[in-house]
Amino acid sequence: MTHSIAILGASGYTGAELVRLLATHPGMQITALGANSKAGQSMAQVFPHLRHLDLPDLVKIDQIDFSAIDLCFCALPHKTSQEVIAGLPTSLKIVDLSADFRLRDPAAYEKWYGNPHSAVEMQKEAVYGLTEFYRDDIRAARLVAGTGCNAATGQYLLRPLIAAGVIDLDDIILDLKCGVSGAGRSLKENLLHAELSEGYHAYAVGGTHRHLGEFDQEFSAVAGREVHIQFTPHLVPTNRGILATGYVKGEADAVYAALAQAYATEPFVEVLPLGEAPSTRHIRGSNFCHIGVVADRRAGRVIVIAALDNLTKGSSGQALQNANLMLGEDETTGLMMAPIFP
Amino acid sequence: MTHSIAILGASGYTGAELVRLLATHPGMQITALGANSKAGQSMAQVFPHLRHLDLPDLVKIDQIDFSAIDLCFCALPHKTSQEVIAGLPTSLKIVDLSADFRLRDPAAYEKWYGNPHSAVEMQKEAVYGLTEFYRDDIRAARLVAGTGCNAATGQYLLRPLIAAGVIDLDDIILDLKCGVSGAGRSLKENLLHAELSEGYHAYAVGGTHRHLGEFDQEFSAVAGREVHIQFTPHLVPTNRGILATGYVKGEADAVYAALAQAYATEPFVEVLPLGEAPSTRHIRGSNFCHIGVVADRRAGRVIVIAALDNLTKGSSGQALQNANLMLGEDETTGLMMAPIFP
Amino acid sequence: MTHSIAILGASGYTGAELVRLLATHPGMQITALGANSKAGQSMAQVFPHLRHLDLPDLVKIDQIDFSAIDLCFCALPHKTSQEVIAGLPTSLKIVDLSADFRLRDPAAYEKWYGNPHSAVEMQKEAVYGLTEFYRDDIRAARLVAGTGCNAATGQYLLRPLIAAGVIDLDDIILDLKCGVSGAGRSLKENLLHAELSEGYHAYAVGGTHRHLGEFDQEFSAVAGREVHIQFTPHLVPTNRGILATGYVKGEADAVYAALAQAYATEPFVEVLPLGEAPSTRHIRGSNFCHIGVVADRRAGRVIVIAALDNLTKGSSGQALQNANLMLGEDETTGLMMAPIFP
Amino acid sequence: MTHSIAILGASGYTGAELVRLLATHPGMQITALGANSKAGQSMAQVFPHLRHLDLPDLVKIDQIDFSAIDLCFCALPHKTSQEVIAGLPTSLKIVDLSADFRLRDPAAYEKWYGNPHSAVEMQKEAVYGLTEFYRDDIRAARLVAGTGCNAATGQYLLRPLIAAGVIDLDDIILDLKCGVSGAGRSLKENLLHAELSEGYHAYAVGGTHRHLGEFDQEFSAVAGREVHIQFTPHLVPTNRGILATGYVKGEADAVYAALAQAYATEPFVEVLPLGEAPSTRHIRGSNFCHIGVVADRRAGRVIVIAALDNLTKGSSGQALQNANLMLGEDETTGLMMAPIFP
Repeated sequence: MTHSIAILGASGYTGAELVRLLATHPGMQITALGANSKAGQSMAQVFPHLRHLDLPDLVKIDQIDFSAIDLCFCALPHKTSQEVIAGLPTSLKIVDLSADFRLRDPAAYEKWYGNPHSAVEMQKEAVYGLTEFYRDDIRAARLVAGTGCNAATGQYLLRPLIAAGVIDLDDIILDLKCGVSGAGRSLKENLLHAELSEGYHAYAVGGTHRHLGEFDQEFSAVAGREVHIQFTPHLVPTNRGILATGYVKGEADAVYAALAQAYATEPFVEVLPLGEAPSTRHIRGSNFCHIGVVADRRAGRVIVIAALDNLTKGSSGQALQNANLMLGEDETTGLMMAPIFP
Repeated sequence: MTHSIAILGASGYTGAELVRLLATHPGMQITALGANSKAGQSMAQVFPHLRHLDLPDLVKIDQIDFSAIDLCFCALPHKTSQEVIAGLPTSLKIVDLSADFRLRDPAAYEKWYGNPHSAVEMQKEAVYGLTEFYRDDIRAARLVAGTGCNAATGQYLLRPLIAAGVIDLDDIILDLKCGVSGAGRSLKENLLHAELSEGYHAYAVGGTHRHLGEFDQEFSAVAGREVHIQFTPHLVPTNRGILATGYVKGEADAVYAALAQAYATEPFVEVLPLGEAPSTRHIRGSNFCHIGVVADRRAGRVIVIAALDNLTKGSSGQALQNANLMLGEDETTGLMMAPIFP
Repeated sequence: MTHSIAILGASGYTGAELVRLLATHPGMQITALGANSKAGQSMAQVFPHLRHLDLPDLVKIDQIDFSAIDLCFCALPHKTSQEVIAGLPTSLKIVDLSADFRLRDPAAYEKWYGNPHSAVEMQKEAVYGLTEFYRDDIRAARLVAGTGCNAATGQYLLRPLIAAGVIDLDDIILDLKCGVSGAGRSLKENLLHAELSEGYHAYAVGGTHRHLGEFDQEFSAVAGREVHIQFTPHLVPTNRGILATGYVKGEADAVYAALAQAYATEPFVEVLPLGEAPSTRHIRGSNFCHIGVVADRRAGRVIVIAALDNLTKGSSGQALQNANLMLGEDETTGLMMAPIFP
Repeated sequence: MTHSIAILGASGYTGAELVRLLATHPGMQITALGANSKAGQSMAQVFPHLRHLDLPDLVKIDQIDFSAIDLCFCALPHKTSQEVIAGLPTSLKIVDLSADFRLRDPAAYEKWYGNPHSAVEMQKEAVYGLTEFYRDDIRAARLVAGTGCNAATGQYLLRPLIAAGVIDLDDIILDLKCGVSGAGRSLKENLLHAELSEGYHAYAVGGTHRHLGEFDQEFSAVAGREVHIQFTPHLVPTNRGILATGYVKGEADAVYAALAQAYATEPFVEVLPLGEAPSTRHIRGSNFCHIGVVADRRAGRVIVIAALDNLTKGSSGQALQNANLMLGEDETTGLMMAPIFP
């Protein structure tokens, strides 16, 4: 049986990535593509790399007949997303890729995003979409909130360590480097090729990045106490990829064991042999996450590093992984493509 | 039924690309990987991006038992390839990705490659692997010679025009721009990131590039007379992609009609609407070739442009397309993945 | 004696490049910086790479007292430039970097730029700023029109050949590849890093690029008859650099002799030994232009290639070279810095 | 008076950068270029971007007459450098860019570099070349040891903080990101464009990078006790630039004050306003170092970030700055060129 799929916000990078992944998925078919600002255009006009596909044209969201849709991906900007989703049929399965349903506490949402939440009831219902840690809840969920791409990377690295109690919870530093597609297809000076190429820099320094809201919520829940990490993201001149370097205090063997055990049976998370470090070039375009553990020269200190593709495992691949669960498909369907290298 | 596949020369870029494509192919399984210089290593050591796959370790070629192999891809350097292939079982189906069996005339081979051919009989037997134009021969072939990646791009652009008689055969100019992976994983100063990034240049200027041997052979055969084009390749700072800009004399409508007709039913070659130009970003990582036709401001002159991925449609994707035909699989199996963008 | 300099349009890339060059010029001092949209900001805010310099803040153009200015560079958008320049004191020396005074024929201007010229009298007075060919006129000029960066590159390559009568005037093809800074600091989707990096494409295909107006004007004047070349620009993923590959009909020796003679005493134009091709990486950040000549394998056909930095020799470096002449400085002052490599 | 300069190891990137800087230096003239492996070639053959300069050809080092040389830059590989320098006239002023004379303790040298030092007496004589902190010693020195480029960056960031006693000395983390030219012009697979572009990764993880030898020596000397920082370098896909992100424990105001005071009169080190972060794009090709300080959301924690160009301020620019002092020139001569952006 083939499931009927809608994508709202199909004209952005995560929307395009969803179409790429669904193009060869044997159990899903795209039957509606919504994108208000580019409604009326064909997908080939907006994304010429998808021109070989037989896709519906982009339409306004209110033109879509959702009664025939089994699952809807929402790749809209935050705030817009909660408004749109609040108006969708309550029976519709939804995977939201925005930030709108990640934070369970309305006050936390308002603190990090600056506006009060307009769909508080749905916010409570939403399941956090970090598949490996919420698998059963996601399988039963109607509304799944995709995680932030940086937030996913940091959590793959640190959740098992916090859960296993093998690191000092008061001294966790996450130095993250991400490619530019994470910023989306928005017209900003600092995203121009001439500005970014051959240059790199930190941003949101000092603990102001919104994904800290997710880290605080999730790490505190896992630890059973408040955990507030230090987090500095950097923008580097590549299109895809996140590399997160974590500095933790603990014993390397215990840290390694906690990670190896957590991901022993996971299809998409690979823990490298102790002492090896991952690279973004080895996960590009795929749903895999590579994790490395290296002991520091100073006793009791460990460097842990995770690499994943922000558009795939960090966003649209994760969304499809969750949709597979929600629709009763095998979780890995359509997601086992190898990374593209070089 | 699953076919048993060997890849010789698995430690290079085209070898890795073959593994990437075969990883999700439902009808083929990799049972042997040969790479003399790296024999004994696992594929995960040589190409960490493939570590999630259950692959045989790399072995020396003479350690492979070919009796259980249905088809062998040879991704070896030229000259080595002919020597190795001459020693393989004569019943084995082979797709060669080197230059060794592209030129039917031994004298032409020696002229362009500098050494006499050591397997002249096999050279006669080999079928030229440009699928869209040799499909029936390939289906029946035992040995198929993969084309040069530049040679493929130029032929997709120009063969239909020469065949249809719609352009001046004495005044064809092909200005080609290719990414660096076409040069392979070889340690040369001009392939270093610090040398190539933020710079670009022409090479093999003046008609000295070896792929001219293929152009001369094929275009002359199509035309029924000698055709010698001008051809200047340029190296640009990207990893993948070939963009070939052709300058021809003829009428744009006739040129467009010849291309549109030639590829009307082809699954992988897309002719864009008249007046549109393709971009390498729209075919990256895929087996698609995009072709554009634009009339020049000067009457009787047309610009034709083709874009493809040198490692996929230009090399390993083409090889798999041919292997599908040789093994009775559907030609497109394992090759319909969408391009990766951004 | 130090000359007092104003720059209008100082918040764009060519404005910043002028400041970079003037920063160490012993005979010029920047006394006013105009940029209407960013008036009130310091240069360090707009361009942090210039923060070590003691520069005046950006002001609105009508706030500048031009009575104390010896020479004014205008790096404004076309159309705006002619309106602003028409209102400047008639005694002020001006080097305009826009397109507004390049075309001597008002009809040609309107054809290529779409609007009637609003300062036709000044258009007649302006001297075309290709220094090597208009040196004496520039020295005596009050208003010099900087050339287009593509137009400069093509002219360095082809003017001496047309003047010497050594090539077929009816069959000149110029295939040009330029970096992205040539498009300026404008917010367009195709200039985003995620769109441009790892991709390249032709644009303005078919003879629609505005710099053809300059080619037609200048080449026809040199030849004494109408000359209309074919010209296809391509955008490649680098920040700086133009590489122009010309396909001409003639004898390589004569072509080489014409170029070598034309530039024998020029300080900034280097003709490489016959058979060598230039690269953009060897002129980056400098005022040099490298030219190569290679005979094609087909008799009577020659490939000529020029490389320069679009922001320096193609724009702001050329502007300073002209300003030096206009102010009685040595032409090379402040311009002899070596290219930056790697 | 013009000083006569020799450069040994002129065929590498730091050698080329020295030539670039010296090309417009009013008080120095290059009279000998040594490069054993490429002896006999012209500089234009090895580095075509320097072809406009009138330079001596490359010769073997033992062919150079050092009696007429005032100062010699040694840009040779480590170990070779100490052997060559031991054979040079003892009256010759030398700036060594290798690692050979950075560590004062022969045991530390052997620990980090793997071979016993063969010129121990000279090792004792050498002055550590971090100009801003050893200025008087350098002015009087005969042999100056240029610092490691990563080591320089980390020290600009941390020395003033250690000296002022404003941070916890036992908990300093330095997460550093560097461009590829820092690895030199060596033929290694991981330096190929196809491997590095669109990818990035940590290396020498866990405290194994050799520049830790310099950090340990210098920071311990400043603190008057043992200081051992954590240090993880990352390779990012740019040619030039180092960005060092430091995580320290202290008060932001005190940290800022210590840095601002340390560099208040320095011509090349700029401390940005509190709360701003630097970017490598703003120092490219220049001798400037930009430093930023941002308070973390967690009290008592501060992020400090430094950016410089590894080939200029991190290596050849520093070397020239030191040579200026040693020869009685103004320290900034030839080094005030603005960064190149974009």
